[in-house]
Parts: sequence; C-alpha cells; structure tokens
Amino acid sequence: MAKTVLGIAQGAKSAQRLLAKSSGAVRTQALNAIAAALREKAEYILAANISDIEAAKLNGMSESMVDRLKLSAERIEGMAAGVEAVAAMPDPLGAVLSGTTRPNGMKIQKVSVPLGVVAIIYEARPNVTSDAAALCLKSGNAVILRGGKEAINSNKAIAEIMRGAVESAGLPADCINLIEDTSRDSANELMRLNGYVDVLIPRGGAGLIRSVVENSTVPVIETGSGNCHVYIDKYADVDMAAEIVFNAKTSRPSVCNACESLIVHKDIAEKALVAVAGKLSEKNVEIIGDEITCAVLDFATPATDDDWGCEYLDYKISVKVVSDIDEAIDHISKYSTGHSECIVTEDYACAQKFLNEVDSAAVYVNASTRFTDGGEFGFGAEIGISTQKLHARGPLGLKNLTSEKYIIYGSGQIR
Amino acid sequence: MAKTVLGIAQGAKSAQRLLAKSSGAVRTQALNAIAAALREKAEYILAANISDIEAAKLNGMSESMVDRLKLSAERIEGMAAGVEAVAAMPDPLGAVLSGTTRPNGMKIQKVSVPLGVVAIIYEARPNVTSDAAALCLKSGNAVILRGGKEAINSNKAIAEIMRGAVESAGLPADCINLIEDTSRDSANELMRLNGYVDVLIPRGGAGLIRSVVENSTVPVIETGSGNCHVYIDKYADVDMAAEIVFNAKTSRPSVCNACESLIVHKDIAEKALVAVAGKLSEKNVEIIGDEITCAVLDFATPATDDDWGCEYLDYKISVKVVSDIDEAIDHISKYSTGHSECIVTEDYACAQKFLNEVDSAAVYVNASTRFTDGGEFGFGAEIGISTQKLHARGPLGLKNLTSEKYIIYGSGQIR
Repeated sequence: MAKTVLGIAQGAKSAQRLLAKSSGAVRTQALNAIAAALREKAEYILAANISDIEAAKLNGMSESMVDRLKLSAERIEGMAAGVEAVAAMPDPLGAVLSGTTRPNGMKIQKVSVPLGVVAIIYEARPNVTSDAAALCLKSGNAVILRGGKEAINSNKAIAEIMRGAVESAGLPADCINLIEDTSRDSANELMRLNGYVDVLIPRGGAGLIRSVVENSTVPVIETGSGNCHVYIDKYADVDMAAEIVFNAKTSRPSVCNACESLIVHKDIAEKALVAVAGKLSEKNVEIIGDEITCAVLDFATPATDDDWGCEYLDYKISVKVVSDIDEAIDHISKYSTGHSECIVTEDYACAQKFLNEVDSAAVYVNASTRFTDGGEFGFGAEIGISTQKLHARGPLGLKNLTSEKYIIYGSGQIR
Repeated sequence: MAKTVLGIAQGAKSAQRLLAKSSGAVRTQALNAIAAALREKAEYILAANISDIEAAKLNGMSESMVDRLKLSAERIEGMAAGVEAVAAMPDPLGAVLSGTTRPNGMKIQKVSVPLGVVAIIYEARPNVTSDAAALCLKSGNAVILRGGKEAINSNKAIAEIMRGAVESAGLPADCINLIEDTSRDSANELMRLNGYVDVLIPRGGAGLIRSVVENSTVPVIETGSGNCHVYIDKYADVDMAAEIVFNAKTSRPSVCNACESLIVHKDIAEKALVAVAGKLSEKNVEIIGDEITCAVLDFATPATDDDWGCEYLDYKISVKVVSDIDEAIDHISKYSTGHSECIVTEDYACAQKFLNEVDSAAVYVNASTRFTDGGEFGFGAEIGISTQKLHARGPLGLKNLTSEKYIIYGSGQIR
C-alpha cells in the first residue's frame, strides 16, 4: 500500500536526521551511485516513460508538451551526467560563515547546515526528479517530490532507482521520496505539514505557483514566473537592441527568462521598432503594440491592458513606447514579476539609473535576459529561479538549499 | 478619516521606491532626526501612554503587563538612544556581496538591496514601534507597524513623531506607517497583501505567531517561540550546571531565550538535581519532573506529556532524566521549538556531538541560553529571533532586513 503523505514526511524527517550527520564523502558517493544506477537501468526508465507518453497522447497532450515529457537514452545520460556534476561540487555544509569571540570569552560561529526536509511540487518534466533530488541530497536535505500525473510512471521508476542507490551508499532510502498520489489533495496536504517540511519549492506554471503561495503554511520559495522586459533607451545601439530582443524572445520562448515585453523610448521608436520587428519576423513573432507601435508597425495587434502583465511563453511580444526612462521604470515596477529586465543603452547615467532603480532578481545592461540561469551565472545546477526577496533571489544553487545555525563554545558564561 | 490597510500599503510601496534611491547619509540623518524628536516630544508620548495605562488598568491587565506597557522619561531616552545606535551602524545597502566575470565577458555582481515593504505585527511593548521602524528605515525598507490595541495611543504618538522627523529629513512620511485599526481584520488583511508587502514579521506570543503562519500568504519570518533546553551531561561540572540553569531560567523568565526544560543524564541525576534545585529554590522556581526527578526531589510536581512542549515563561521548569546523550538529543528534536539549547559537559566528544546534532538556531556548550540576542551576539539591535530555517536563523540584525539582486554589465551578449 502506498504511504500517506504524512507517513512519507515522517520518514523523510527521520532520514534527514541521519543524512545531516553524514560526511560529504558519503553524500558524494551516494550521488555517484545514483548516476551509475540511472545509466544501468535506463531501459527500465524508458519503458516506464513509454506508458506516460502513451497516456499523454491518448489524453490529447500537445506535441510540445509530449516532447518535454519524453525521455531517450540521451536524455537519461544527461540526467546521470547532471547528477555527477552535482556530486563533484564542493560540499555546501559545515562551512564557518562567520565567527567572533565575545568580550566574555564566548566563541560564536555561524555554520552552514541543511534546510531539513525540502518539498518540491512540479509539473511535467521527469528530469526535474533527478536534478532536484541530487541538489537536495548534496546539501544534506531529505526531499519529498510531488510531480505531475503526466510523468508519474517515469517519476516512480527514477525515484525507485535513486532510493536503491542511496541505500547502497549506506544512507536511508527515505532521503528521497516520491508522492505517488498526484491528486490536488496530496499537494494541499504537503503544503501544510509544518513541523515536517521546512521549505516548499514550487516549479511550474503561474497557476501552480499561485496555488502554493495561497495555500501553503510551510515557508515557500516562490520561483519561476517571468514577465521579463527589455527597454530600448534613447541612446541604444539599435542593431545591438534588435539582436538582444530577438535572442531574449525567440531562443526559447517557453522559459521564464524569455522576454515578454518590449519598451522603447519615443525618440528612437520608429527606427528601433522597424529594426526589431524585422528581426522578429524571421521567427514570425506576433507583435502586440500600444498606439504608437501600431502606427509604426501596421501589422501589429493593438494591446489591451491585460497584455502588459501577460507571460505569453510563446512567439508573441507586447510593445510599449515611453516618453523617458522614468516611465519605462514605472511600467516595469507596475507589471514585472521581478525576474529579469534589461536596458539597451550606450549612456552611462541611464545604465546606472536602470541598475539602481529596477527592483528585479537580475537587471541587465546590454545583455539578453536569457542569461538568468544557474549554469550561465556559473553556479552549476539550479533548482529554480527565485522571484521573492526572502532567503534567496535569482538562480537557486546549492548554497541556497542550506540554512545556518550558531554554535557557541562557552566555559560557564552566564548573563 | 483613517486610511485603509490597502491604502497604507500602497503608500508604503510608493514611499519605499523613493527610500530605496536615498543615500545612506540621508537615512542616517532621518534616524537622528527621529531620535531628537522623540526626546523633544517626550511629554507628548508620556501623555498618550498615560491613557493606555489607564485603559489597561480599567481592563484588569496584570501588573507585569502594565509594566511592559508603561513608558517613562528614562524609557523614552532609551528608545531615542536605540534609534541613534541604529543610525550609527554601517549602511547595509549597496554592498557587493560577490562578483564574477563570465567567459563571455559579462560582469555579474550580487548586491545588497532592501527587502521592500516590511510589515510587523506585534503586541504590547511600545518601544518596538521605534526599534522596528529604525531598523527598517536604516535598511531602506518602508515599514507597516500593526501594534496591539493596549498600546495604541502610545504607538500613534510615536509614529506621528517619527513620520514628521522622516519628512523633515527629506524622505516621504509614508516610509513609516502605523495601522490604527487594531482589530483582527486589519491583521488578516495585512497578511494577504502579496504584491505590496514583501515580508511579514510577527513579534509576540505563540498564539500570534501561529495565527500569522497559518493565515499569511505573504512570506513570513517566524520568530520568538522558545522552548529552550539545558542538558546536563554525565561529564558535567555540577556547580557550573547549576549556575547556568539558574541564570537561563530565572534571569528573565518571560523572554524567549529563557530555559524551559532541563534534561539530566541518569548517572549524574541525583547530584545534579539536588544542586540545581538548591539554586532554583532561591527564586522559588516550581519543578515539574518525570518519575526519577520526583523520586529525587520529593517536592517536585509530576510532569504530564504536555509539559515537555510547554513554554512556561514563568518561574517554572520541566525536568527529565535520560539514559544517554542520544536520548537527550532525541527529546530535544521532538519537543524543541528550535530556538536555543545548551549542553553542560567537560567531555570533548559529547560537546561536539551535541553541537553537530542539535538542530536549533543557537546551540551552546557551557553557556546560558540567555545569550541568544542580537546585542549579546554583537550584531547591535535586533528585530526578533528567527526560529525558521529560511532566510535567517537566530537574532535578526540589519543584514537580515536586506535582500539581494544581480546586476549584469554586458556589451551585447546573447545566448
């Protein structure tokens, strides 16, 4: 019989107490065992994945979604290599982050420790199962995975293999847990397990994230939703601007760091809009514009107020013309999800003003928003991109899966 | 007419955008203006405080609660000096926390920025009003204060004075906001203002904190609740143990870092219990013990299961005898709120084991749990003590009122 959500959480909490005591060497060994097992049992995973794919096709899932769900020998090799890359990273635990000796002789040290039990609620992609588990294990956290129903057979196979590998390395299998019940109830229960779950990280679309933020009593790291803006300043290099917008919009439109909205200074609007639209037409990007944009680009669709806050995740972009940089920053402040924004400018003061005043996780001068990514930032694998200001902001790496505690060496001090 | 909670939050959000652009010098100047104004208008605050005190007495408030509520010339001077101390601290904003140049030439820097709008829901003590506002202002955050009804007149007077002072320094008065409606509705509304409030910090009793954790959709930093343990190990210096327990229990029983529960190794139980009880009898501390404790100390009251999780906040302590250090750590793991725990031991291995395995914000060897405090740790003023693992753990100083963002200097990079 499948374990209850509470039963799984209790098991995870017990396992985590043992995991927290393990050495970095043992955790690395467990990760390498996972990578080896994923490779060795690739056929088993592929067979499970085929049943997910068949069910998805029967349920009329779109081609692109089926592609995200689909595993192959190459993709499983990629998962294994990803786990090995996490294994090879430095141990984030046990670092002395700061320390002091007080006037009374007490030595106080702040050290890095695991968060504890990390729960991850996510959608279709089965590679998240191994990525997330690897990052959590490396950082001494037990993980509770609650994937979507579309990938349940793949996820069960992957989790089973990982649990076996963890056990073979001498750690409890319950360091890695999959909730097999993919109903809304299981997610809701997980969101309220204060005392068992230390942190909840949702990975998926805006609906999933909203539901978690609304319903969770467990602390949440909000990730992912990205209504990213590129602002072409009066002093922009128009060719550079067109290249950056084209890259930010079209290199991978379905991801959170893709550009969704373009803002253009009025003094450069005509020239910039023609240049950008020319590039975007190569990929048939639909342009949704304000009045001035539609006057310059007669093929553009008029924007409604709803467009400014919309994350299209598609070959589609909203375009607004502004009077000055302040109006651009105000517009971003009003509609951005706080993920990534870019100014294209050759002007020093405008660049500094934009960097200082735009309150997003990543603020760029003259570079594509598509760089907001753990790998691109040089952090290695990431577990998501935080758009909240508490705990961590931007790409979440291993370090962000740790907490800290103070240890105090005394000799009888009283206050 | 009093502003609505939403209206206040909108005002705070606008003000914060201006505050975020201010220099450290201006923020320091505003804080010094607040300190001067509190001193200058001390009579005005005292008059308002008298009406709170009178209402409290009419409502039958306990002597000790009335004392917490009561202001005096000295206490107002203390508030002013506290604000000046915050003013004198280094600016926590604009620090480059890390930085790297990527292979493609992009320069990525992580810089410290304000959290944004910080809301604080708190109970009786009016000095929290100036302490919290000062820490938030210094760190570039607008603050929304929602104090208890008992201190409403004092809080209104203090907030009015602070708002005037902030304005005199050239910052918007709405950097500091008091919600005058002290109903449960106003607190509940504040807890759900995602998009306006970035972080909510409750300061008060267990009931308040539970209500905030249960109901808030805004990210919360959980503070305060402290079921702190002292474990007297087999290898303890019994005299030192008695001094530490006495200090941890009786120096200020109403605070969160006071010891609530004593654990004693069986091999040292008789000697240790007699020594500790002897010291505790000086302050008439009631002892609630398990079977062995009651056998040794015949005046002890038998403990029920509820006692182990209870934060007495009084001259009362629960006592349990254990077979070994593992049982002590298991007991702490089960009942602690994760605030502060102490082992008293002369044994190296036991000390290391306790430091490694006890998962609390502050873990002590041979020192009183009463040291868990921003001032005692050398951080200056604190806004509370976090017992959660996300964002910050232990005493919350200025640094913990900041977030970070990535700024990226590019030259046309695309991905």
